[in-house]
Amino acid sequence: MSDQMQLPFPLPSQAPEPAYFQDDGMDDDKLREECGVFGVFGHNDAAALTALGLHALQHRGQEAAGIVAYDGEHFHSERRLGLVGDHFSSAKVIDRLIGDAAIGHVRYSTTGETILRNVQPLFADLWGGGFAVAHNGNLTNAITLRNELVRDGAIFQSTSDTETILQLVARSRKPRVVERFVEALSQIQGAYALVALTNKKLIGARDPLGIRPLVLGKLAGAPILASETVALDIIGAQFVREIEPGEIVVCTKEGIESIRPFPQQRVRPCVFEYIYFARPDSVVGGKSVYNVRKRLGQELARESAVEADVVIPVPDSGVPAAIGYAAESGIPFELGIIRNHYVGRTFIEPTQHIRQLGVKLKHNANRAIVEGKRIILVDDSVVRGTTSIKIVKMMYEAGAKEVHMRVASPPITHSDFYGIDTPEREQLLASNYDLEGMRAYIGVDSLAFISVDGLYRAMGFTHRDQQNPQLTDHCFTGDYPTPLTDRDGEQRTRQLSLLAEIA
Amino acid sequence: MSDQMQLPFPLPSQAPEPAYFQDDGMDDDKLREECGVFGVFGHNDAAALTALGLHALQHRGQEAAGIVAYDGEHFHSERRLGLVGDHFSSAKVIDRLIGDAAIGHVRYSTTGETILRNVQPLFADLWGGGFAVAHNGNLTNAITLRNELVRDGAIFQSTSDTETILQLVARSRKPRVVERFVEALSQIQGAYALVALTNKKLIGARDPLGIRPLVLGKLAGAPILASETVALDIIGAQFVREIEPGEIVVCTKEGIESIRPFPQQRVRPCVFEYIYFARPDSVVGGKSVYNVRKRLGQELARESAVEADVVIPVPDSGVPAAIGYAAESGIPFELGIIRNHYVGRTFIEPTQHIRQLGVKLKHNANRAIVEGKRIILVDDSVVRGTTSIKIVKMMYEAGAKEVHMRVASPPITHSDFYGIDTPEREQLLASNYDLEGMRAYIGVDSLAFISVDGLYRAMGFTHRDQQNPQLTDHCFTGDYPTPLTDRDGEQRTRQLSLLAEIA
Amino acid sequence: MSDQMQLPFPLPSQAPEPAYFQDDGMDDDKLREECGVFGVFGHNDAAALTALGLHALQHRGQEAAGIVAYDGEHFHSERRLGLVGDHFSSAKVIDRLIGDAAIGHVRYSTTGETILRNVQPLFADLWGGGFAVAHNGNLTNAITLRNELVRDGAIFQSTSDTETILQLVARSRKPRVVERFVEALSQIQGAYALVALTNKKLIGARDPLGIRPLVLGKLAGAPILASETVALDIIGAQFVREIEPGEIVVCTKEGIESIRPFPQQRVRPCVFEYIYFARPDSVVGGKSVYNVRKRLGQELARESAVEADVVIPVPDSGVPAAIGYAAESGIPFELGIIRNHYVGRTFIEPTQHIRQLGVKLKHNANRAIVEGKRIILVDDSVVRGTTSIKIVKMMYEAGAKEVHMRVASPPITHSDFYGIDTPEREQLLASNYDLEGMRAYIGVDSLAFISVDGLYRAMGFTHRDQQNPQLTDHCFTGDYPTPLTDRDGEQRTRQLSLLAEIA
Amino acid sequence: MSDQMQLPFPLPSQAPEPAYFQDDGMDDDKLREECGVFGVFGHNDAAALTALGLHALQHRGQEAAGIVAYDGEHFHSERRLGLVGDHFSSAKVIDRLIGDAAIGHVRYSTTGETILRNVQPLFADLWGGGFAVAHNGNLTNAITLRNELVRDGAIFQSTSDTETILQLVARSRKPRVVERFVEALSQIQGAYALVALTNKKLIGARDPLGIRPLVLGKLAGAPILASETVALDIIGAQFVREIEPGEIVVCTKEGIESIRPFPQQRVRPCVFEYIYFARPDSVVGGKSVYNVRKRLGQELARESAVEADVVIPVPDSGVPAAIGYAAESGIPFELGIIRNHYVGRTFIEPTQHIRQLGVKLKHNANRAIVEGKRIILVDDSVVRGTTSIKIVKMMYEAGAKEVHMRVASPPITHSDFYGIDTPEREQLLASNYDLEGMRAYIGVDSLAFISVDGLYRAMGFTHRDQQNPQLTDHCFTGDYPTPLTDRDGEQRTRQLSLLAEIA
Repeated sequence: MSDQMQLPFPLPSQAPEPAYFQDDGMDDDKLREECGVFGVFGHNDAAALTALGLHALQHRGQEAAGIVAYDGEHFHSERRLGLVGDHFSSAKVIDRLIGDAAIGHVRYSTTGETILRNVQPLFADLWGGGFAVAHNGNLTNAITLRNELVRDGAIFQSTSDTETILQLVARSRKPRVVERFVEALSQIQGAYALVALTNKKLIGARDPLGIRPLVLGKLAGAPILASETVALDIIGAQFVREIEPGEIVVCTKEGIESIRPFPQQRVRPCVFEYIYFARPDSVVGGKSVYNVRKRLGQELARESAVEADVVIPVPDSGVPAAIGYAAESGIPFELGIIRNHYVGRTFIEPTQHIRQLGVKLKHNANRAIVEGKRIILVDDSVVRGTTSIKIVKMMYEAGAKEVHMRVASPPITHSDFYGIDTPEREQLLASNYDLEGMRAYIGVDSLAFISVDGLYRAMGFTHRDQQNPQLTDHCFTGDYPTPLTDRDGEQRTRQLSLLAEIA
Repeated sequence: MSDQMQLPFPLPSQAPEPAYFQDDGMDDDKLREECGVFGVFGHNDAAALTALGLHALQHRGQEAAGIVAYDGEHFHSERRLGLVGDHFSSAKVIDRLIGDAAIGHVRYSTTGETILRNVQPLFADLWGGGFAVAHNGNLTNAITLRNELVRDGAIFQSTSDTETILQLVARSRKPRVVERFVEALSQIQGAYALVALTNKKLIGARDPLGIRPLVLGKLAGAPILASETVALDIIGAQFVREIEPGEIVVCTKEGIESIRPFPQQRVRPCVFEYIYFARPDSVVGGKSVYNVRKRLGQELARESAVEADVVIPVPDSGVPAAIGYAAESGIPFELGIIRNHYVGRTFIEPTQHIRQLGVKLKHNANRAIVEGKRIILVDDSVVRGTTSIKIVKMMYEAGAKEVHMRVASPPITHSDFYGIDTPEREQLLASNYDLEGMRAYIGVDSLAFISVDGLYRAMGFTHRDQQNPQLTDHCFTGDYPTPLTDRDGEQRTRQLSLLAEIA
Repeated sequence: MSDQMQLPFPLPSQAPEPAYFQDDGMDDDKLREECGVFGVFGHNDAAALTALGLHALQHRGQEAAGIVAYDGEHFHSERRLGLVGDHFSSAKVIDRLIGDAAIGHVRYSTTGETILRNVQPLFADLWGGGFAVAHNGNLTNAITLRNELVRDGAIFQSTSDTETILQLVARSRKPRVVERFVEALSQIQGAYALVALTNKKLIGARDPLGIRPLVLGKLAGAPILASETVALDIIGAQFVREIEPGEIVVCTKEGIESIRPFPQQRVRPCVFEYIYFARPDSVVGGKSVYNVRKRLGQELARESAVEADVVIPVPDSGVPAAIGYAAESGIPFELGIIRNHYVGRTFIEPTQHIRQLGVKLKHNANRAIVEGKRIILVDDSVVRGTTSIKIVKMMYEAGAKEVHMRVASPPITHSDFYGIDTPEREQLLASNYDLEGMRAYIGVDSLAFISVDGLYRAMGFTHRDQQNPQLTDHCFTGDYPTPLTDRDGEQRTRQLSLLAEIA
Repeated sequence: MSDQMQLPFPLPSQAPEPAYFQDDGMDDDKLREECGVFGVFGHNDAAALTALGLHALQHRGQEAAGIVAYDGEHFHSERRLGLVGDHFSSAKVIDRLIGDAAIGHVRYSTTGETILRNVQPLFADLWGGGFAVAHNGNLTNAITLRNELVRDGAIFQSTSDTETILQLVARSRKPRVVERFVEALSQIQGAYALVALTNKKLIGARDPLGIRPLVLGKLAGAPILASETVALDIIGAQFVREIEPGEIVVCTKEGIESIRPFPQQRVRPCVFEYIYFARPDSVVGGKSVYNVRKRLGQELARESAVEADVVIPVPDSGVPAAIGYAAESGIPFELGIIRNHYVGRTFIEPTQHIRQLGVKLKHNANRAIVEGKRIILVDDSVVRGTTSIKIVKMMYEAGAKEVHMRVASPPITHSDFYGIDTPEREQLLASNYDLEGMRAYIGVDSLAFISVDGLYRAMGFTHRDQQNPQLTDHCFTGDYPTPLTDRDGEQRTRQLSLLAEIA
């Protein structure tokens, strides 16, 4: 879910203080997943399991977390800004989330502005009863639908496209809640992995192309839905299967029912789950993410070998590919960059004077390894290139003789509209420069990206099927898998309604 | 506006701490007004004036306060729990409320539970543009309407009956906002003084019976709406006139337009504004509230004289009537009870041991005045009688020889449904006991209430017109001025929707 | 106790926000008492009783409150900024204050800056055991002593002169704690009412002139020390006697012992306790404060009668004198000024525009009473005259035909150094103008103060004994009862030590 | 600095909430360094540089951080619980720390109780002027000295042994501040790296054995003191030299003066800085910490080879040794355990039911790597063995065929008293079991620790010199480098004085 609506009310209590130091941006030059979801039905520790599952999915969103539980009579909701461990580790909070069914959500951290009103799951007391929903992904026609709903008298409370789904459910005239949910889904376009909770059911739904992941697990007989398998691992749950693209799974006391109300399409899972988003210990679409990344490094070593003394990963996400590269090339793997893990809110140089010093808040060169060496620097991706410039400069300053950069994904040339936070096209390095231009911009002795076919090989395909691509890969190819209705239409920005507020 | 809906989500961050000391209840045995409203249009200091006006109306509600301002482009909203002076005195808050038009609201303080989600003004971005509304009063068919709206797909965010008005406006198919507002008002029953703000208009509306007050003032040409004249005094504004019962006033840049879309009815203003709610320095319905209260004391002295040494008011609300009683009777007026004004959150005895001590948190006998005297104790009203018992006991313990209690309103026998927080009938002293029973219960040497006709005389009438009573006086007579639809129907309690939350 | 030392560390977390509205100053033109103290020994509810006692003494200090309790093994301390009722009404706080002996302290509220580090009681773990102390009053040689102590290696943690007493006790070589305490007291000059708690004793001490008050009470056999009798009333304790000037009272399990180690002096209690500080329902030095104030009004009516229609008190402190004035003169007493009691943090006009409106935040004229009348305005004292100007202007604007101001204390011409917060002499109206000058400054038709002898008569003396004045009255006479060592010496301002800090 | 004194006052505002989930202990089985220090003199960005330096030293203490700056006239102090980046990244905080000289301190995080009053630097306004001090290390005679000082009239405000140093300076009769500081140091025993700031000087001091590290750097001519070189790297400062054991460095505007007032001793730096505490990218005593750790892994591979398929580090501290082990043994290095870095406050299983699930909060097995393999698990140290048991169990559950554990430090048999937080001896695994017992306890197929001589070899020595050991290594050998006065004496626990408090 995303923030497509403008939020014109000032949110003063969260206005960030003027920062003397800020992030050094060494991590900021990454794409960001926008959410993770989790649900469990029929387990006495439903809320606690959900908190643990969300903790395992924390890498998918650090801005906010929320859980809604149902106790057979009432729904209970706790939603907080911040990390799961900061807010959902106390008995006080978990004990308020009474019930044997729960769903949860983590949301990613924007820089600067924090959108308070969009913390999920959302809950509404509809005519037929309570309905809670949490969403990973992004709709491509949410604003279009929202404007129609407002014209029809709906009052929106958040800027989230997830509320659009909820308002559609509220307005459906179908008699049963699953039918109303299906009717709502039939109107939306884009990417979604959804978990919903009613007074009788836990529901999971995945978009027809399977862009965002969703898996089914089981713990002591209770069904579990989660964005990734690591959320099953943390609680010792058993992996059952992936929810299929276009499938709606309805868990009740009677068991699990599967519905496929929409016409079937060729599936196209998002390749960025493998490249960067998913945890390396997750298994996505039947493949170990760690092994895919190591194979990306191996392919890269094969495609663009270079003579050097040492292979150095850009920590932490470049490590598996660097291990693969080192193994394939026979060049030793060393920690030439040390990362400071104590970075909550971060820092940057305060005065022009200090700015010139080139403060290194998150990363520091390990001079004992770098000095006098020819190094191969392995990173998972390059977005704007801003981090790469800094890292490379740091390597030279620490005495590197040569720096050869190897990137374990193809050049990113297009923005995403399915739940990944990408910069505008103009800010993408690869949409502005050719390879030599990028090399010069970053300032390395040599630069190479893995090829699109190399990427598909690391994923286990022989090559990309140009007619029916096996993956959602528009960031590299510009080939978007669905219409982009909102982007192509002309949408008035609306102000946010505030029927209820807390201060 | 009131809280007719159940709020089943726990609101933990505001759960009151277990109090070792609690209120001694000496003030709690009062009826409570539920709100005050204020609005200004076309003044550069709109938000600051609104904050000042709300401060002057603080006695009408101490739970929460809110202001919405409009700057010609955006609406800005600040809503807070607590006193106006605690939150709206800082430049930081006022400066965020940009614009030359603003409305505001104060809300009364419930004991124990604080309903966060009901702080007003409410705001919604409707199809035609933004619409903010603040409400003093209570609807008698809000739940009935709400259930119809939910069935039709509306998602409610608060338990307030004010949201019902807003949802009705949102659903209206009329083309212009005033027409939509009128259509909404035509469906509601009960008492209301409303101020609303759109992108072009400040609107005021008063229910057809004029139960709740609303006045029009002017400052430097800018129209002002307020619950009482003291809100005009504080900013040096000029009083223009009362908004008439059933009148809708629309202020635009072009001037003030008056609409009377509903059939005219005989007006019946609420008599409790004079007895207790309004500030003594306000002028309500053309009458000085202080003088009405003094006359209530004088009527009381005439109706039920008694020999005594001293007239003592129950502070602070009994003071004007006691001055009137003393003047009429010739018995000296003295401060025999001293009130501790430093009472924020309050206190009660912690252990059984201390409980027996009879702790006096808010009031203390002034023994030098009371000891050895025959005293006349004057209070404005008696609700449950619990305060009276304590005050009287305190007088005897301080050495009073005789205590004669005189009450400046008739016995309260019926509950209110129009914006006054009254206990259930069973808890009203006068619906359980006759006069002698009450005297014995309170434990005084004599007890007298003003008669209903005495009350009407103090108000300037010769007597109550039984056919067409001149005042809303059901608390004394049981004569309700409108149907009580919700009370008489059978309404399902619903759970609250939570599309947006902050924690 | 007072803040004689500069506090140069910024205290940012308490830096007041820029206020859009501020106090209208209508109450600020008063002298302020700096503290109240309370102690109880041998009662199971020691902390709860102390909280209640401090609540009754809240008028003596609203900035901060603190309690130290002793459970036979450990001392427990809770100290907070804010009102007693805001922090010491919760079971959580009181339950932490374990023990059957406790002392407490309330401290007055400075404007703007709040001195966090000076909240009392202070506690130190001395060689002989724990020692807690709370102080009402002010020393006149504290800085002189402090500089000597710092030169000797003492590290001060607060700016309070009370810490000087504690450091003197710590350094004493006497073997027993009472002896060490007496040795410390023998070195200090000024005014003090002290309560102290050790692991075996509750100690009370009053300066040899008896400038600040301290009374002894009893509840269920347990001795109680308090600044005023109202702190006994609130818990139903029995008044036993005043602590005599120069007396040290030592309460142990064995009983109460009285020590008088210093040469006896003629006593001179502070007259301002009667005029303004003490609660009207307190009995100080055997006299009802309310009755003294009424007599001040009566004397004033006799000394400076004037023809008028109505007597109006400046609320709230002018009310008893106004009642006395009205009774003596036969002119009716009326509430011509209404006070807004909902004033926490307050307000002032934001822009030049609004400033010209003359915003009335705390007081409003009751026009129905004032209009067309000749009024006598009765106030307890005039300090800078700033409030008087505003009140008088308000009366004329509400239509008063004549305003005659009568003040129930003599003109204040000198500052205090004994625990009353007075402005510099240059800011005192009466040290700048003669009577006619003051009348013109305030802008009234006539102005009169009570005479010094009138004041002594209202106190029950025939006149002031010029050789041996019966009262501490230097504010009116310049006759200081002790040397002013610090003021007359030259003292280096020191920076505050910060061995321990919380932020 | 350490907390040797009992803190008997409850510190309620920081009482940790009852945790539903708690730490899984996977990181807790480590020794913890207690502090890091930093100082700079004569640079316009003194406070900002100090904040950055402390951020680089954050691994030495995460409980609290503080900075004191001096602007030529006043000292400014900011001390906070929490991470440097959370509190010292805002311009608001840094801008209050005016001046071109500053010192700072980070402090480690205890579990459960947080000692608020001990946040450093401490500051006192001594007779000669202000004196601020920050301390890494621990004194072994602090309680003994403290009791003497209290007997002499000193009032202590914290439980920290650093305050003892400050009280000794305050009491010194020497005329000049450096002399007073030297006199204080001459009385203390134990380990210390100190930075102090006066109104003219920045002073650094290191204990005669050089147990704790302290380095001198330079930035644009301004001298810098820091616990580790990474604090120089982050601001681009130049490394000058180590402060020598027993040396006192005095930086003034005139330059840097070095004093060596104590008899020279053979130096014995603490070996744990190399094994675990210092950051791998630091250079301590002229040696790259990363390279020492890699060599520890290589020595280990030589001392205790084993046939296996894969070398897996326990992240993150076991990584360099594992890389060394893999390189020496030729067995591939793989990430078989994935760490969740989003762990603020942490978690543990809530109910018995969930407890049995074996929740993995911080670490997860990477099954794709582990399953069916013979693995060598490399860790830096084993303290209680609790983490090892869990990690090993996780490996077997993920399908490991064999688990061989290799530890890059000798068995820990003795507690530390010099600033490392060690459990009581009884809790140390190696003081309870022999090697086979430990192997069985941890449950591995084989277990080996590096030998003491292997450790000395990795440090560049041929072997341990038994007469004059080159390192402080009592944790492995029981050979303490100084007397343990407090431990061997009998010391009364005292209560904490509270002259100043904030709540």
